[in-house]
Amino acid sequence: MKDKRLARVVRNMEELNLKQILVTQTESIYYLTGLWVQPGERMLALKVDIDGCCTLYVNRMFALEGLCPGLRLKEFDDVDDPTGLLAAGLRTGRLGIDKFWPSRFTIELMQKRPDLEMVLGSEPVDRARMLKDQEELEAMRRSSRMNDQVVGALPQTLALGDTEAQVGRRYAQQAVDLGARGASFTPLVCFGKGCAEPHHSSDNTPLREGDAVILDLGLDLEHMMSDMTRTVFFGSVTPEQRKVYEVVKAANEAGRAAVRPGIPMSQIDRAARKVIEDAGYGPYFLHRTGHGIGLSVHEPPDCSAACHLIAQPGMVFSIEPGIYLAGKFGVRIEDLVAVTEDGGETLNALDRELRVIEA
Amino acid sequence: MKDKRLARVVRNMEELNLKQILVTQTESIYYLTGLWVQPGERMLALKVDIDGCCTLYVNRMFALEGLCPGLRLKEFDDVDDPTGLLAAGLRTGRLGIDKFWPSRFTIELMQKRPDLEMVLGSEPVDRARMLKDQEELEAMRRSSRMNDQVVGALPQTLALGDTEAQVGRRYAQQAVDLGARGASFTPLVCFGKGCAEPHHSSDNTPLREGDAVILDLGLDLEHMMSDMTRTVFFGSVTPEQRKVYEVVKAANEAGRAAVRPGIPMSQIDRAARKVIEDAGYGPYFLHRTGHGIGLSVHEPPDCSAACHLIAQPGMVFSIEPGIYLAGKFGVRIEDLVAVTEDGGETLNALDRELRVIEA
Repeated sequence: MKDKRLARVVRNMEELNLKQILVTQTESIYYLTGLWVQPGERMLALKVDIDGCCTLYVNRMFALEGLCPGLRLKEFDDVDDPTGLLAAGLRTGRLGIDKFWPSRFTIELMQKRPDLEMVLGSEPVDRARMLKDQEELEAMRRSSRMNDQVVGALPQTLALGDTEAQVGRRYAQQAVDLGARGASFTPLVCFGKGCAEPHHSSDNTPLREGDAVILDLGLDLEHMMSDMTRTVFFGSVTPEQRKVYEVVKAANEAGRAAVRPGIPMSQIDRAARKVIEDAGYGPYFLHRTGHGIGLSVHEPPDCSAACHLIAQPGMVFSIEPGIYLAGKFGVRIEDLVAVTEDGGETLNALDRELRVIEA
Repeated sequence: MKDKRLARVVRNMEELNLKQILVTQTESIYYLTGLWVQPGERMLALKVDIDGCCTLYVNRMFALEGLCPGLRLKEFDDVDDPTGLLAAGLRTGRLGIDKFWPSRFTIELMQKRPDLEMVLGSEPVDRARMLKDQEELEAMRRSSRMNDQVVGALPQTLALGDTEAQVGRRYAQQAVDLGARGASFTPLVCFGKGCAEPHHSSDNTPLREGDAVILDLGLDLEHMMSDMTRTVFFGSVTPEQRKVYEVVKAANEAGRAAVRPGIPMSQIDRAARKVIEDAGYGPYFLHRTGHGIGLSVHEPPDCSAACHLIAQPGMVFSIEPGIYLAGKFGVRIEDLVAVTEDGGETLNALDRELRVIEA
């Protein structure tokens, strides 16, 4: 077991009055045990008791015996009843459930143990994971430095007729060649009108002269995620594109400059959003300003109007304002920022000047 | 709305005495609406009422307005309370919940609507998706035919020093070049000892002479998944490898030959498993014989000793027996089989003869 991390989780359980929790997200189990298990549809749950005892309920197929000193294993096979096994090992009262656990298991457990009160139980681990220590911060820096390098080399490879999906695969291949485990999420490359959809999936749209190009890309280096966005223009840029770009760039700068310990996350969202609102584009900034990142590419804290968490040293999140003009184009600029003792440290060093790539 | 599919789901709801269900898996929502929405951590739920009324609760960012005639939309933003919106739209009584919905939403909903009885509610859609119609079967055949083509071309590309992950990426690139949306799961390529771990992740292990090579690969063609496994030997094959290979091949054949409508799925598992047990390798076949497949790479029905579903025409599942000798090597041979009116149709045509690739 990762004892220092476990101690923090147990302390958080005490504060939150949770005597037993089930940790089920692959990243959270990795955080506490160093074991990386992707269970697919099979049940996987790490029971953490308030006394620090940890029991992993896991399919025998994953062959974890002896791999994590201090961890008790309860193994089962494909023909067993894993929620029955788990139900037999729980004390009565409240049970904290991982927010990501498929409802199937929660509902089966409710039916087998109606005496249990199921509550959300991710917070003890979320709070621990949210505050990165020096070693974790250094791993985050390495991941973002590599991402800077791969994303930085991409614009000059753009060629007329390239498809969005091709450019995405080119990114992922480069990341792997440099030693990443892979992309941290499906590469999100958008051309032209596709840039106006913040939820766009990269497809076979070909690159054309005059397109805005959104490159929203991240990699997984030793289980630490990076994530950044740059928008460039291919062949030419219109005055409207230029104007929107500069507003988004200023919003990104204002968001990053607002980061410091002690203020609510919502205030950082406000700082970025205000720049876009003041320029008259408020209704075209369609999402929160950012999201936390670490072992998962999206994790607490949110950087949104609805997030009242207080920024603390060790938190890492994205600042990614965007303006989306439906049917025309869009611009997003995203960097990761870590909260320091007296401000914020931007983990990405790649420049943000408007760039027109020769067609 | 896909009206024929919806009618089947509503009929299943009647049989199961469910008056309202929440469908949340991306594939299931696509099955009923034709909309492909990957919500990430955002809430997404399609409420299906017993009268056939469908309401999709979705973040406004996905811009679905007008894309699915007959579907009511309830949109929300990042700063809204989506489970509150949903709680206000549910009738009292039992509520069927999608097995895959993150527990976070189920628990929030329970707290906001303590009058609701939450039960597992995936079965109406699972039962419908499990029985493929002619059009769906034809799409499954196309996906597996393309998979045959890509997997079939892979062994002759193997070269000394190739890594597992490289070969996996080569497969994915070939699939995309032929028009697939991508791999249907992370390509699972194993060399040598890695073949003995059914849960192995492809890594930087280099290919060496004498290695067994497991190629467990599938692609996504227009949202229909394929999945197959071939095991080949690189440079040479030992008598033990040859013996194990022939046992697994016979088990694969026995499993496929057992497929016919009217028998329990467990009996198909038994037919394949018996061949391996009779050869003395029973304890080394570490998993179920197979899994259903369609819009998802794993879906009902299971082909295992624990599955008492009766095989029916239109079901499609894998037959993938394996023998895993820890520290040495492993062999798995997998094909997809569709249940027909009087037997089974193997969707993969790639041959299964033992093959030694020149090193």
